[in-house]
Amino acid sequence: MGHTHAQPQGPQPIPGVDAVVAVGSGKGGVGKTTLAVNLALSLGKLGHKVGLLDADVYGPNVPLMLGSSATPQIVGNNMIEPPSRYGVKVISVGFLNPGDKPLVWRGPMLHSVIQQFLRGVDWGDLDYLVIDLPPGTGDVQLSLIQTAPITGAIVVTTPSDVSLEDARKAIHMFHQVKVPILGIVENMSWLNCPHCHERIDVFSYGGGRRTAEQMDVHFLAELPLDPEVRVGGDTGRPVALRAGQNESFLELARNTVSRTAEESMKEGPKIEISD
Amino acid sequence: MGHTHAQPQGPQPIPGVDAVVAVGSGKGGVGKTTLAVNLALSLGKLGHKVGLLDADVYGPNVPLMLGSSATPQIVGNNMIEPPSRYGVKVISVGFLNPGDKPLVWRGPMLHSVIQQFLRGVDWGDLDYLVIDLPPGTGDVQLSLIQTAPITGAIVVTTPSDVSLEDARKAIHMFHQVKVPILGIVENMSWLNCPHCHERIDVFSYGGGRRTAEQMDVHFLAELPLDPEVRVGGDTGRPVALRAGQNESFLELARNTVSRTAEESMKEGPKIEISD
Repeated sequence: MGHTHAQPQGPQPIPGVDAVVAVGSGKGGVGKTTLAVNLALSLGKLGHKVGLLDADVYGPNVPLMLGSSATPQIVGNNMIEPPSRYGVKVISVGFLNPGDKPLVWRGPMLHSVIQQFLRGVDWGDLDYLVIDLPPGTGDVQLSLIQTAPITGAIVVTTPSDVSLEDARKAIHMFHQVKVPILGIVENMSWLNCPHCHERIDVFSYGGGRRTAEQMDVHFLAELPLDPEVRVGGDTGRPVALRAGQNESFLELARNTVSRTAEESMKEGPKIEISD
Repeated sequence: MGHTHAQPQGPQPIPGVDAVVAVGSGKGGVGKTTLAVNLALSLGKLGHKVGLLDADVYGPNVPLMLGSSATPQIVGNNMIEPPSRYGVKVISVGFLNPGDKPLVWRGPMLHSVIQQFLRGVDWGDLDYLVIDLPPGTGDVQLSLIQTAPITGAIVVTTPSDVSLEDARKAIHMFHQVKVPILGIVENMSWLNCPHCHERIDVFSYGGGRRTAEQMDVHFLAELPLDPEVRVGGDTGRPVALRAGQNESFLELARNTVSRTAEESMKEGPKIEISD
């Protein structure tokens, strides 16, 4: 009977990688990278094997947030060996250009770098590969999304109307290229004053959940604006590493696991053709 | 003796427009657009004639922040008439695509739209044309900067290390194309708790000024993270319109005026060639 093959459709799966979760946003500065980093670490805490691909060509901040400046090595089979940090395998465009100088990416170059990061990296066996996309809905984002075999996307927004407007654009973009939305995360939902412990709705509140309902996508989590999260990112010790501090990220990780499973199921039984 | 001509160098000046001030950032979500809008309105308050060009193709949020959805009209000379809002003439890529659908801009199309907005808009006599650039340091930003006759650039950052890392990249980018830096603005410098009025350094504090010193550029202003500023943006009534609320933006506007004058002086006496 020989081998059986799944019918190829869209970008090919990455051997050994079960699910690819893209983290995107319509707008920068909403905490997309912070979320991607803490989600990856939290998935690791839940016992999964996790990789993190920093594809944010405009601001590859993952190395800074992980306190990692390791140079990836080339291994025997001419593959890139991703450095491991806090148990997560990491590749970043920032590793290619660690200084302050901006790297001006032209489309085709970008495309080949991302292909390299997806196919030329020795990811090994992963339950989840988290991709930190560049923010926005331009052609760079579109071509990235179309390049990678994404199981589902998380859209990060703050509760401000301006951010929500751009989040809706991001959801439309993923719909357009038929990438399932795992759900919306409302980040910086509120701040607890460290002095009086009263709650402050700095960027408003609740728009993420409302937008999810309006657009018929899941709402994954609301995360507070926590100065500790920023400190964690700035010092290379993400907050998800600390005991007690990371409940909201753990909950996000659990919801991501269940939503990813749902979307993987939906792909349905693969049509197998024997040759 | 006939006419005298200034020797052309780089992009041609826009007839009637005295100074072009670009507002950029290495990272999105730092308040760049909020700052551009409130700076434009504050320059108007100081008695200047002001235009605002929203070139942020990734998130053209200026119409939302100004509560303006006017469609620009074509006037007799085949020029676009910019709608006026709160005394400021406004053109936005958002006017071309007011809905939720993302507009995927390819390079050449973008280039021609920006040329149209610079040259094909009847700006009339302006003291200042403020351009809200897309965040980041990619080729879109570079080509935009090279297209416009920019007198000087303002780089907006928050005090977080992650944002400062990207701000340094933005400064390098402007240096690279010989656009003078008017200065750095540290936005979201701190938050006064609306309940106990204690100060909260949400995103750290002081890194903007420190970076300005390190990179030998001016430091223009530090602006608090003020929920009222966000409410102003979300409701289309920017905070700079309110009496009493806008001191920090007025100060920024004054510093921008003086720095722009300095940079205009530096261009030195133009070499005039009589024919």
